[in-house]
Amino acid sequence: MNIDLEIILMLMFLPMCVGKRFNDVGEQRRRRGREYLKSFNVYALEGFPLVKTGDDVAGKIVDAYRENGLRVEDGDIIVVAQKIVSKAEDRVVTLNGIVPSQEARKLAGLTGKSPRFVELVLRETKRVLKASRDILLVEDKRGLVCISAGIDKSNVEGRGRYVLLPEDPDVSADRCRLRIRELTRKNVGVIVSDTYSRPFRRGQVNFAIGVSGVRIFKDYRGKKDLFGHVLKVKNVAVVDEIAAAAELLMGQGTEKSPVIVFKGLGSEASMCEKRGLQELFISDQEDLFKNAL
Amino acid sequence: MNIDLEIILMLMFLPMCVGKRFNDVGEQRRRRGREYLKSFNVYALEGFPLVKTGDDVAGKIVDAYRENGLRVEDGDIIVVAQKIVSKAEDRVVTLNGIVPSQEARKLAGLTGKSPRFVELVLRETKRVLKASRDILLVEDKRGLVCISAGIDKSNVEGRGRYVLLPEDPDVSADRCRLRIRELTRKNVGVIVSDTYSRPFRRGQVNFAIGVSGVRIFKDYRGKKDLFGHVLKVKNVAVVDEIAAAAELLMGQGTEKSPVIVFKGLGSEASMCEKRGLQELFISDQEDLFKNAL
Repeated sequence: MNIDLEIILMLMFLPMCVGKRFNDVGEQRRRRGREYLKSFNVYALEGFPLVKTGDDVAGKIVDAYRENGLRVEDGDIIVVAQKIVSKAEDRVVTLNGIVPSQEARKLAGLTGKSPRFVELVLRETKRVLKASRDILLVEDKRGLVCISAGIDKSNVEGRGRYVLLPEDPDVSADRCRLRIRELTRKNVGVIVSDTYSRPFRRGQVNFAIGVSGVRIFKDYRGKKDLFGHVLKVKNVAVVDEIAAAAELLMGQGTEKSPVIVFKGLGSEASMCEKRGLQELFISDQEDLFKNAL
Repeated sequence: MNIDLEIILMLMFLPMCVGKRFNDVGEQRRRRGREYLKSFNVYALEGFPLVKTGDDVAGKIVDAYRENGLRVEDGDIIVVAQKIVSKAEDRVVTLNGIVPSQEARKLAGLTGKSPRFVELVLRETKRVLKASRDILLVEDKRGLVCISAGIDKSNVEGRGRYVLLPEDPDVSADRCRLRIRELTRKNVGVIVSDTYSRPFRRGQVNFAIGVSGVRIFKDYRGKKDLFGHVLKVKNVAVVDEIAAAAELLMGQGTEKSPVIVFKGLGSEASMCEKRGLQELFISDQEDLFKNAL
């Protein structure tokens, strides 16, 4: 009977161990205690509900984790599409009732855009960088360089309704991070992201526009390479790379996946309290590309 | 005895099922047969050996898969750092023996760079976009806009030795993909990537500079959003987003992880034979940012 019990126990635990061995390769690799990271996993929170003004986005994220069979864990990095943050923060406007300024009318003539839309853009703008047929490129009041101050009508209900960027996307990210901590006691990082065109290359990619609890840069300057040369320039914009990766699952059409979860990036992104999209903005003096276009 | 057997069997399979349930969430989510993707995993191939002229990079990748406990599977996307491709293709040069042209000497004066280094850059260049203190921005002979034609000395052995970009990174990617298929009979995608500064934002991110077997863009133009609006602009540069994501594990210093594997992106990146970095290059006429810096 003793032997039987042993066999039973062995039979019980054998498959468990084998199962663990094959399924947790990534996890095992992470645990080996190296200083740099060897794998990470990315998940879309499927079936995320439509967001309305005043909604608790962080609460919806925590619910969606559960509905997707995932757990909120320390070190998770959560990328949230700007659009749902803006909707929750009531940053949706209609063109009705917008009175265009003289400058808006002038730029509307140049760009072929509606004077009221241009007025909306100007209200969010620090300076206009380029206005020509179909193009109104600005540095927005936050410091972000983008087409039409990031104002957009895709995935917004109703005609003539436009979504502005969050008033301060860093604050939005920070609020979301703190609320998730309140709900789950877990320390996550939050990136608010949006998709933009960029100079010199066709197509758009996702960028970070608000950050909380994630290291912005991986700075190699002053460190040595494999052969002892000191690296002079390398300062990698990690949050932009995470935002770009998130877009692969986020989609831009009817995918309904505005929230993407990264597991295993914790040590790489070295969770910190510091927030500050401002660090990503670059002055004209520092911009290597200034005057090159 | 029959009952005992049932109990034993139940006890045997219960933990297996529970184990599977918790460990295969991503896999299960993928299998549900939806049209869009819900998760993917990213792995660094750890302990990748130093690459020398003439090395079979694809062969080393297949070996490294095995040493990292991973299998080459259909749909894997493999991102390879430009530097090891260039080294294998003997694109390492020394400045000794380079004779600077008159133009190189003039630009050396403007930029403060050595005339022989500038000569190297010019030999890889179609046109100079900007030359000023410390900056030599060019459109290289391939069409890629980058600082110093992507020529760099980090992670190269020896003084005065520089690595040029592969002669044609699309061909390099294609050769790597076909060789992996020859070795494993698996259809993978290959992206050759490099890290570059970009206008308007601080820091660098990884870009795709050569592509084979991966869809370049996810084109939403003409498709509808959640509320039936037709999307006019969205055309996402997927390969750049994959390259950016890879950098999170690749590192730029002593990490020795020049090859990164994506599993689960297959349907998203919709494997195809088409290759062509050229599609990512944009003419001055099409570049929305032209004249904006």
